[in-house]
Amino acid sequence: MSQALQLDVAIVGGGASGTYSAWRLQEALGNNKRIALFEYGDRIGGRLFSINLPGLPNVVAEVGGMRYMPSADHDTSGHVLVDKLVQHLDLPSKDFPMGNEQPKDHPVGAQNNLFYLRGQRFRMRDFTEAPDKIPYNLAWSERGFGPEDLQVKVMNSIYPGFDQLSLPQQMQVQVFGKEIWRYGFWDLLYRVLSNEGYQFMKDAGGYEANVANANAVTQLPATEYSDTTQFLTLKKGFQSLPLTLAETFAKLPGVLRQEQRVQMNQRLVSVDYSDDQEYPYRLHFQRTRTVNGSTTDVDEPQTAVQARQVILAMPRRALELVESPLFNDAWLKHNLGSVLVQSAFKLFLAYEQPWWRALGLVAGRSVTDLPVRQVYYMGTECEQEHGEPTLNSLLMASYNDIGTVPFWKGLEGGEDFQGYAPNNLKGAYGINEVVPRTQFQVSDEMVRIAQRQVTQVHDQVELPAPYSAVYHAWDADPYGGGWHEWKANYRLDLIIHKMRHPVDDQAIYIVGEAYSYGQGWVEGALTVAESTLQDFFKLSRPSWLPEQYQLLPDQGPAEIEPPTPMACKDCAKTLEQVTEFAYTGIQP
Amino acid sequence: MSQALQLDVAIVGGGASGTYSAWRLQEALGNNKRIALFEYGDRIGGRLFSINLPGLPNVVAEVGGMRYMPSADHDTSGHVLVDKLVQHLDLPSKDFPMGNEQPKDHPVGAQNNLFYLRGQRFRMRDFTEAPDKIPYNLAWSERGFGPEDLQVKVMNSIYPGFDQLSLPQQMQVQVFGKEIWRYGFWDLLYRVLSNEGYQFMKDAGGYEANVANANAVTQLPATEYSDTTQFLTLKKGFQSLPLTLAETFAKLPGVLRQEQRVQMNQRLVSVDYSDDQEYPYRLHFQRTRTVNGSTTDVDEPQTAVQARQVILAMPRRALELVESPLFNDAWLKHNLGSVLVQSAFKLFLAYEQPWWRALGLVAGRSVTDLPVRQVYYMGTECEQEHGEPTLNSLLMASYNDIGTVPFWKGLEGGEDFQGYAPNNLKGAYGINEVVPRTQFQVSDEMVRIAQRQVTQVHDQVELPAPYSAVYHAWDADPYGGGWHEWKANYRLDLIIHKMRHPVDDQAIYIVGEAYSYGQGWVEGALTVAESTLQDFFKLSRPSWLPEQYQLLPDQGPAEIEPPTPMACKDCAKTLEQVTEFAYTGIQP
Repeated sequence: MSQALQLDVAIVGGGASGTYSAWRLQEALGNNKRIALFEYGDRIGGRLFSINLPGLPNVVAEVGGMRYMPSADHDTSGHVLVDKLVQHLDLPSKDFPMGNEQPKDHPVGAQNNLFYLRGQRFRMRDFTEAPDKIPYNLAWSERGFGPEDLQVKVMNSIYPGFDQLSLPQQMQVQVFGKEIWRYGFWDLLYRVLSNEGYQFMKDAGGYEANVANANAVTQLPATEYSDTTQFLTLKKGFQSLPLTLAETFAKLPGVLRQEQRVQMNQRLVSVDYSDDQEYPYRLHFQRTRTVNGSTTDVDEPQTAVQARQVILAMPRRALELVESPLFNDAWLKHNLGSVLVQSAFKLFLAYEQPWWRALGLVAGRSVTDLPVRQVYYMGTECEQEHGEPTLNSLLMASYNDIGTVPFWKGLEGGEDFQGYAPNNLKGAYGINEVVPRTQFQVSDEMVRIAQRQVTQVHDQVELPAPYSAVYHAWDADPYGGGWHEWKANYRLDLIIHKMRHPVDDQAIYIVGEAYSYGQGWVEGALTVAESTLQDFFKLSRPSWLPEQYQLLPDQGPAEIEPPTPMACKDCAKTLEQVTEFAYTGIQP
Repeated sequence: MSQALQLDVAIVGGGASGTYSAWRLQEALGNNKRIALFEYGDRIGGRLFSINLPGLPNVVAEVGGMRYMPSADHDTSGHVLVDKLVQHLDLPSKDFPMGNEQPKDHPVGAQNNLFYLRGQRFRMRDFTEAPDKIPYNLAWSERGFGPEDLQVKVMNSIYPGFDQLSLPQQMQVQVFGKEIWRYGFWDLLYRVLSNEGYQFMKDAGGYEANVANANAVTQLPATEYSDTTQFLTLKKGFQSLPLTLAETFAKLPGVLRQEQRVQMNQRLVSVDYSDDQEYPYRLHFQRTRTVNGSTTDVDEPQTAVQARQVILAMPRRALELVESPLFNDAWLKHNLGSVLVQSAFKLFLAYEQPWWRALGLVAGRSVTDLPVRQVYYMGTECEQEHGEPTLNSLLMASYNDIGTVPFWKGLEGGEDFQGYAPNNLKGAYGINEVVPRTQFQVSDEMVRIAQRQVTQVHDQVELPAPYSAVYHAWDADPYGGGWHEWKANYRLDLIIHKMRHPVDDQAIYIVGEAYSYGQGWVEGALTVAESTLQDFFKLSRPSWLPEQYQLLPDQGPAEIEPPTPMACKDCAKTLEQVTEFAYTGIQP
């Protein structure tokens, strides 16, 4: 027991926030600090997981998080921390293909992407140009909008310019006699939309999570999926961000050896308090083994590590699987459950050609109420910078969440999908080698059903067969889900701050996406991590991060004050914008 | 520690299967056996929970299970065990009002009940009489059916007369190259129905659970909700069944005192194995306290009980909350997760008059895709046998499950619903007294939103205000959900038998609805309990239970045999029935 590794900081969780924390701490605190990072499985990345299917070295299958929003040079909008970090680390980025860049009247812009809902097919442009084609029994005031624009309209009908308010201001806003943060978003939408309007937003929006009954104060102004939003991604995959952070961390000068710095296949079992004044925490780890992506305990005794400070860089479900007196704290016990854990599912198919191009589809997504829900046209190898001269192309055949995930879980198991090796593949591929071995081995049946639904969405009789495939279901331990959403009726403005250091007299910190203001995004994870390092580890703001970028939203007072009267800097302009946006010409 | 109560049988869980087991064992084994029943809260009944709202002594609000199917005298159909037990215990029963008894052309039969789906209103009779009114883009072969009949048609298209096969025969049936038990029901329906057909079944069927992606072998032949099914209920509430069982058990001759027999407010923390040859099990209980229906631990030391045999009469989630080496058994570990735990929600509103009667609605339910989902017309006080001479009436304003439960959870909290005391109420009711105090206190907002949706379903401008209300959400610990459904790809025919005595060399038994062949019904819970008592406690079949009634379905062989060719006793007749049923006259 006296041989236990003694650490200044033990960081648990090899995802974005864990690797970021390790790298920043080691770099800032210098080489006599003993900092180590522990990861449950054999993979650094957490919910960033980039897979290269054969023949597609430059079109990455991102089975986890896949994109971020660029920051403007003299602005604080977008995912500033991720964007500046990527630039600082010199990771090559590229546009994430949404097809927005084409002018609206260009024949092959995303405006022509397909919707297949309630057995009817129409194009994105039809939301505004041919609203009669939309098979929902909408109120006149709901017609003429796409699902994201309908949300903006709803927001403006509740409080013009709500998204321009600070979080403490948003927490004050009342509607129908109750603060917005006390509403579930569905409960709120029910008051201002017809049920068909809600079903339309749910079906046509593609993401069930976007209209889930989570906290309305974060859901209402969340318009990041609007048709004009620009996204970036990393050329080598989003996972290259945490991988680079972990590698850089391990190589920084320091007293610990590299293999002590980053310890893979270690499951945190418990965090105990000890009487040791210098190292008050004892972390117990169970060794694990990962075979083809699946991680299980190894049958050997647990090992212990001593630490002065602990950073738990883990989502809600992973935290719940750890035993510690920390979780007996009343505040923490209550607020660990302040977020919903939402399940998600992604399936990628690789083809020898981008058959969708011949249908006038280039980038972005098509949406359906079939269980595939969203089909993304991810790109063709030869069109990528330095791409190989093949037409090999990647389709995200399904991106779905919550209610449709059970459909796909039911197709797990059975015979493995075999695929085939196209002639253009470099190197020799034997049987069983064109389909990667992963924790979730894609079945022949799953591929066939997905291919059938993709065929149906595109109104085709038969499509070329995919040669490779990979999927991932974000519903299992230790993640629990793909992302988190604040529950209604929780003071998230306070919890975001407090959760980082939940128990005052313990040097244990919780960071990551789960309890952030940017849930579902890497930016959420990193802003919590960086603010924790600055506020509790006394690190200075990194030179590459703009001074004016605020990491966390301000907290409101303990007792929310009565709402201030509606106000705007330039009322006339705000009202004009709101009115113009809402006017579609459709008659009541 | 030497003072620990020593028991022959410790039964944990005061629901239907626990109280039944205690009563049967004490009665059969006689008065020198030491048998005790332990219950977590202060209420006997489990998921049977009957509440009498003021002014409605004869129209019970069943916030849990509410009905059963009568058995025919010379037949083994229906819920034979429940029905015969009710008769044996002399509990008065009555028809559960579905409105089926009226002839089809009677103007006020349930055939006139409303559907409000996708913003369109129509009546039940319109499924067959006016299929053009149904707002789903159905295939021609799917039109002309109600959701339950469409399911029968699907079943017959897969295997004519599938519901007439034994379970081992059903386990053999293959479709599209795979056994039916390996399919999720949604995955299977996807092969034989249009997506609109599936959405129609989900929306118009009222219960999401009925088309959930659970095991197709139990879902496919489940047509118990057909419009002609007859149901019974207990006059004093379904909860009077377990209450009567527990009371009778406590009063039977025996060595234990009554208060030792039925021990309320005891949370089972763990079941340990001990070296004691005579009493090999040590059960640790934490005392709890229940205030207004909410149960929490009391801060005092745990107590221990010793037992020769243990019956865990608990659902999946409750079992998962107990610590025991039992759950390290590999088979049990794997198969505890063989069932889905489904959430459900019920809200009742009491009115001074049955306003629905003036709309031509008498009994049964109306169905909508609004979050209330199902509205049941439960009855009027003066129409009940020995009812009080008032028009006080009960509406189940919402019965919904799974996807819509979060809508209602978001309306919890806030100001309590106050109601008002109608002049016809006997006795004096002060403020706060017409609305019962329960674990889930109904909020003013929840009542208002439900009332608004009920108004919308019935196409009214305003309806009379309810004077009382009560709701229950079946999603929280220790139940986890309202009922269970077998997962796809599990050998439920084997698990049903084995789960009763999961670990061969331990005298610990698991009974209840969760791992039964009658999931969602009391019959499921009792058949598992009775078969356990006969098979492992050597009890004889009770005299009141017909010899020919089979408690559990047969098990198939360990390796399922290849399917036998389709066969039928009277092929010509079966085919004629199937064809006649499917022919609607609708043209392709």
